Amino acid sequence: MDHQETAAEVGRLLAKMRAAHPLVQNITNFVAMDIAANVLLAAGAAPAMVHAPEESPEFVRLAAALVVNTGTLSRTQAESMEVATIAARSHGTPWVLDPVGAGATRFRDETVQKLLRHRPMVIRGNASEIMAVARGAGLTLETARPRGVDSANTTDEAEALARLLARHCFCIVAATGAVDVVTDGKRMIRLANGSPLMTRVTALGCALSALVGAFVGLGEDPFIATVAALAIYGVAGEIAAETARGPGSFRVEFIDCLDRIGPDDVKARLKLA
Amino acid sequence: MDHQETAAEVGRLLAKMRAAHPLVQNITNFVAMDIAANVLLAAGAAPAMVHAPEESPEFVRLAAALVVNTGTLSRTQAESMEVATIAARSHGTPWVLDPVGAGATRFRDETVQKLLRHRPMVIRGNASEIMAVARGAGLTLETARPRGVDSANTTDEAEALARLLARHCFCIVAATGAVDVVTDGKRMIRLANGSPLMTRVTALGCALSALVGAFVGLGEDPFIATVAALAIYGVAGEIAAETARGPGSFRVEFIDCLDRIGPDDVKARLKLA
Amino acid sequence: MDHQETAAEVGRLLAKMRAAHPLVQNITNFVAMDIAANVLLAAGAAPAMVHAPEESPEFVRLAAALVVNTGTLSRTQAESMEVATIAARSHGTPWVLDPVGAGATRFRDETVQKLLRHRPMVIRGNASEIMAVARGAGLTLETARPRGVDSANTTDEAEALARLLARHCFCIVAATGAVDVVTDGKRMIRLANGSPLMTRVTALGCALSALVGAFVGLGEDPFIATVAALAIYGVAGEIAAETARGPGSFRVEFIDCLDRIGPDDVKARLKLA
Repeated sequence: MDHQETAAEVGRLLAKMRAAHPLVQNITNFVAMDIAANVLLAAGAAPAMVHAPEESPEFVRLAAALVVNTGTLSRTQAESMEVATIAARSHGTPWVLDPVGAGATRFRDETVQKLLRHRPMVIRGNASEIMAVARGAGLTLETARPRGVDSANTTDEAEALARLLARHCFCIVAATGAVDVVTDGKRMIRLANGSPLMTRVTALGCALSALVGAFVGLGEDPFIATVAALAIYGVAGEIAAETARGPGSFRVEFIDCLDRIGPDDVKARLKLA
Repeated sequence: MDHQETAAEVGRLLAKMRAAHPLVQNITNFVAMDIAANVLLAAGAAPAMVHAPEESPEFVRLAAALVVNTGTLSRTQAESMEVATIAARSHGTPWVLDPVGAGATRFRDETVQKLLRHRPMVIRGNASEIMAVARGAGLTLETARPRGVDSANTTDEAEALARLLARHCFCIVAATGAVDVVTDGKRMIRLANGSPLMTRVTALGCALSALVGAFVGLGEDPFIATVAALAIYGVAGEIAAETARGPGSFRVEFIDCLDRIGPDDVKARLKLA
Repeated sequence: MDHQETAAEVGRLLAKMRAAHPLVQNITNFVAMDIAANVLLAAGAAPAMVHAPEESPEFVRLAAALVVNTGTLSRTQAESMEVATIAARSHGTPWVLDPVGAGATRFRDETVQKLLRHRPMVIRGNASEIMAVARGAGLTLETARPRGVDSANTTDEAEALARLLARHCFCIVAATGAVDVVTDGKRMIRLANGSPLMTRVTALGCALSALVGAFVGLGEDPFIATVAALAIYGVAGEIAAETARGPGSFRVEFIDCLDRIGPDDVKARLKLA
């Protein structure tokens, strides 16, 4: 797909989202709950934060997608993620994994690796998290490339590991940052929208994973759905940054922009790198 | 009470709230905590989020009202709600039930039905939640009306079930939406203020339940106290929507409006349907 | 230190913060998580909310400081605070205690007194909380002063107990309010910046404790680091209040101000009482 086709597809999915209002169930961290719910509402989706193991698998029946985020992991949340992702897989409901803090503690790494068995449709994280998940799954660049590429820079390394992880898990992998990379193991798209202010507001990455859930909940090609979520997020961030006076007003403007953004904004501003 | 008397009573209770600063204890969901606390502060009340079963009943002694919300229910929270509502009843402290997601899972329905035994002073939810609570309590329209009214539209049905539920529980029931309905089983008031933007910000319904708690904590007629909370909320939402540019700025304006709103705004804008 | 020297030191630490981006681990309450993380980001620090006992001690290795806050205490959180503060002490990582609600329930008081054994570097609370912690530790004014000073006003009493508590725990104590008091048991500084709007936004006190963590995480004299956090917070609050239209817009402006504030603002506005 070239730039114009990608922008058109993103615009089409955005319109579909606003007509369908997919219900997105989140088992997410306590920092992200407010902003993730407001991002989903602004973009046209319907949020539900349902995390107790006593009800999370039952609630999956009602949801178009499930999003699992390890940001403030607890024993009970890990248990809930386990039973809810099993339910999602058995219902054929797509689910998104946001492995927040992967690599920081054994508890997170073990939880993330267990969850991989239940087949996420998308894994979204920053470069370090994606690399930690890939390494935790036993993937190294040596398995894919000849030795001698140790000088590969971090971005290249993240891209290569993202591709390996996507193939290993049969899923979409999105490593986001100044440039976002999305791959299904074969296709790869790089997006370059956004603003440095997006790193100055807490949990905006987590809220992006929730939005990826909303887009894959539309039931179309998950690769382009993931691209759509990232594109809309980046373009809205770019527009919001033009009038924000700091991270406080940026957060407010960003939600307003997500609400207002349309296919024309995507067409005019989408940057593929 | 006619329109003018209602507006006068609401204005009087608002002034009393700002003098009394009632302490409202909340056992609420994690999405609502921030916005509910800020709504209470803006309206003149004092929030406390105290949910551990180890301390929630002890804290009830200090509170003017308790608000219980099932939005992100967990086993531990359900246990805490049980012991805290028992303490509230034994202290004569009014408590408000917000049965978020009633009807969605068995866990919520069972928890809500157990809590009803401890006599909430007010139940506030959207139409579906109120109907789910009423049905869970074994109430059906057939017990009140002859068969053959199946064509009753949803609003009518919610109103009829709200009235039955209020009688069954000896409490106030408020079903909120584009039009809010408040009933004590005999009296019924319909309020028509507000803005569609209020559905685009997460947890504004939960925060309204917290505000109902603040008003019933003033120790006056709980029916008019509930009407006062809904009236002030709706009028503030209406004013805020006039300058908001989207759901992000609406949230900010709404808190500013709740802080500024006075009896004259209520008098000028209150709409009874 | 006179006024000019204090302002210069605060400015120097602020510049250091923005270069060092210290990672601050928080075991905090659910109301404060969003605002505390955004305050840390705006001031130049890096927040992490990591509270499960399964990983909180392991995460301490990575953090420049740990902040423990009892605002929505639970059995599991208390357990996590215990093991994380032990880890902090053993790693030589400074930690800050915010004893929210001390004096309100036995559960909080017992938890706070247990934590004192693991040597917080700073205790920050409002006057009532600091007095409750001091009394829980068995400190009374009689131990320091002759009987007959019962007419001491509350501020004096809080100051005297803060000083005793600082000596008892070998730490810094900050009692914040309209006037903030910081003492290490010998030195005492009173700061008089800020705005009444700061009490109208939930969890701004909790977020201040997080910022104290960021400053003591710079590894300098914890007394002046605590003064720096309070000074910057108060000055930013004062600037934000000049353009805010209510508590909603104040919160937004405040984060923007924390992001923009520089040594010159501190120099021009710092008020020592």
